[in-house]
Amino acid sequence: MLSPLIKQLIDDLRCLPGVGPKSAQRMAFNILERNRSNGLALAKSLETAIAQVKHCERCRMLSELSLCQLCNNAGRDNTTLCIVETPVDLMAIEQTGSFQGLYFVLMGHLSPLDGIGPRELGIGKLIARLTEESITELVIATNPTVEGEATAHYISQQTAKLRETGKMIQCSRIAHGVPLGGELEYLDGGTLSRAFIARTLID
Amino acid sequence: MLSPLIKQLIDDLRCLPGVGPKSAQRMAFNILERNRSNGLALAKSLETAIAQVKHCERCRMLSELSLCQLCNNAGRDNTTLCIVETPVDLMAIEQTGSFQGLYFVLMGHLSPLDGIGPRELGIGKLIARLTEESITELVIATNPTVEGEATAHYISQQTAKLRETGKMIQCSRIAHGVPLGGELEYLDGGTLSRAFIARTLID
Repeated sequence: MLSPLIKQLIDDLRCLPGVGPKSAQRMAFNILERNRSNGLALAKSLETAIAQVKHCERCRMLSELSLCQLCNNAGRDNTTLCIVETPVDLMAIEQTGSFQGLYFVLMGHLSPLDGIGPRELGIGKLIARLTEESITELVIATNPTVEGEATAHYISQQTAKLRETGKMIQCSRIAHGVPLGGELEYLDGGTLSRAFIARTLID
Repeated sequence: MLSPLIKQLIDDLRCLPGVGPKSAQRMAFNILERNRSNGLALAKSLETAIAQVKHCERCRMLSELSLCQLCNNAGRDNTTLCIVETPVDLMAIEQTGSFQGLYFVLMGHLSPLDGIGPRELGIGKLIARLTEESITELVIATNPTVEGEATAHYISQQTAKLRETGKMIQCSRIAHGVPLGGELEYLDGGTLSRAFIARTLID
């Protein structure tokens, strides 16, 4: 019922995350009916970005520059390094404005069954940075999932080895507990028991 | 914080209907992190479809063929013609499988303030088809909105004029009423009063 080129366009739009058959159809018709110039601009920027965007040489963030804007910013605190799993996690932390240091993006987490080990996460590059730069604290902000925790554990072990060689680097993990605005009633048991174990004294 | 090419890609993704800043960011990172070949295929099919997809010469449906697959299908009933506003409406009717005739796609509705009159909707081409082809029934399936109703009214008037010249064409409008599975309690008053006015006798 649809012509081959329109079918192909709908199929290809479905590669976008969160786009099912109905939305893909709506997008294709919207572009072809009244958004052709925007559609061409999108095709062009897809091609340019895919051809040129690589990883930052220092923090592995996605960027077409060899050093990303954060690594290039002399105003950041270069003694603190935050480890995140993905660029989106970095963006979320940056948007809070509560961290002024530098980042290291693993681009994933340890997952031996998928063939993702320390080498794929650039742990070698991380150790080199910890050795060469003047970093004194490592904040590990991987996700609180089984894989994220395993990755955090592995990185803290590597840091402990560095400490044995005389390099003074503290290692910390972001806090887990009850989210602000959340209600205890609806919270899962795991989070609640973490919140009890990590309780802080009120002075 | 984001490099210019990634920012541009996120901006351009927002031209897609239903894509806000958060989804656009998620799409851009998804493509750049692990979907580059699919991203390139999408760019290519956007360009090809935008360059080649035109309107079917007979029914104005979007298609890269000069006669679309529906108009080319000799198995369709060529005495009944259904008028819809958009290609998506045509698709919705086709998916029910309850209509075997041909279509005419207005690509919009009458909207004088936006400069959309009978000429923009191809009413001339529609009258020509009604005069030349062996159509005996016109099913008007424009939306039950103010503009859709006005468009339906205008088309039925034009058909009445044709009837005066001796051409036997019936004009019908799809039924409006309570949708199946709906509950009267939650239905708007307009639909409910239409359902009362158009009630049918039970024999």
